[in-house]
Amino acid sequence: MLPKAVVRLAAELGKLPGIGPRNAERLAADLLAKAPERPLALAEALTALVQTAGTCPTCFFYTDEGACPFCQSSGRDTSTLVVVELALEVLNFERAGVLRPLYHVLGGSLSPLKGRTPSKLRFAELFTRLRSGAFREVVLATSPGAEGDATANYILAEMPVCEGLVLTRLGRGVPMGGALENTDAGTLKLALEARRPAS
Amino acid sequence: MLPKAVVRLAAELGKLPGIGPRNAERLAADLLAKAPERPLALAEALTALVQTAGTCPTCFFYTDEGACPFCQSSGRDTSTLVVVELALEVLNFERAGVLRPLYHVLGGSLSPLKGRTPSKLRFAELFTRLRSGAFREVVLATSPGAEGDATANYILAEMPVCEGLVLTRLGRGVPMGGALENTDAGTLKLALEARRPAS
Repeated sequence: MLPKAVVRLAAELGKLPGIGPRNAERLAADLLAKAPERPLALAEALTALVQTAGTCPTCFFYTDEGACPFCQSSGRDTSTLVVVELALEVLNFERAGVLRPLYHVLGGSLSPLKGRTPSKLRFAELFTRLRSGAFREVVLATSPGAEGDATANYILAEMPVCEGLVLTRLGRGVPMGGALENTDAGTLKLALEARRPAS
Repeated sequence: MLPKAVVRLAAELGKLPGIGPRNAERLAADLLAKAPERPLALAEALTALVQTAGTCPTCFFYTDEGACPFCQSSGRDTSTLVVVELALEVLNFERAGVLRPLYHVLGGSLSPLKGRTPSKLRFAELFTRLRSGAFREVVLATSPGAEGDATANYILAEMPVCEGLVLTRLGRGVPMGGALENTDAGTLKLALEARRPAS
């Protein structure tokens, strides 16, 4: 009973992560109610995205053109490389503000059952960067869990031998502000194993 | 640190109802990862929406062009009019399948504090339809709550005198599948007042 154009828009919106079919219908109706300005502004933003945005040829973070802001900055610690799965995770590490490293975006975690085999991720590009000998520390900041562990283990097994390179992983334990009564046994196990002096 | 085009797209997506700034960033990143096909398909659906979709000049439901599917259908009960606040609510009443009425979409509920004064809603168009004398029953299907009640009361106070017209409102009570332990006192009060014989 909805116009074809609304059904078509809802179908496209429903492909976005976390947007179900009923929610997509609501969003399409909201855009129709605010036509023509809002739908056209969104359409133009999408076209501009395709025309101008891309990924950095070195670290695969997002960029407008050429190298990304991190790779072309002169104020970074170029001896430290943080390897992440997804590009947006870079922003979270920047907000943490502990290091000012360079990054390498793998493009996901290893999961052969979901079709994410080693050739689909940017391991070859990572190993090429490591071979350059430019890094003293590489932080394997893959996600906590089976897929992230498999991804880190693959790097450890397949990476080139790099004399003097220190490989680290993220600390594990209870998160900031986490209520212990809601914390799962696996996290508490990690937190107990990683316990440290109280002073 | 994100490319301008991603920031711009996230800003547009963040104007959609229920999409917060972080979620909008994630959606924009997902679209960038699937460029160019998915962003362009969404942009085209938005352009098509503006070009072809509109509202029915009679009932203000959505339509591709001219009268909406309900107003131009020959299989409807044209003596019954269901007055709703929002167009998508029409679809829910159709799924309920009890009546095959005509509809009238007001465009919202009365809420002067939010700028939704009587002149912003389609009361005048409703009263013109009622004056035609075509309806035997009008169901005031405004939302349960203060704004919906104010909207229904406005119609009752301002509508033209229509000889023989029956005005009804939706039944109130406990919803299907609702757990009574989670039902608020106001709903239980309505359900008790609307109690009926057990057999």
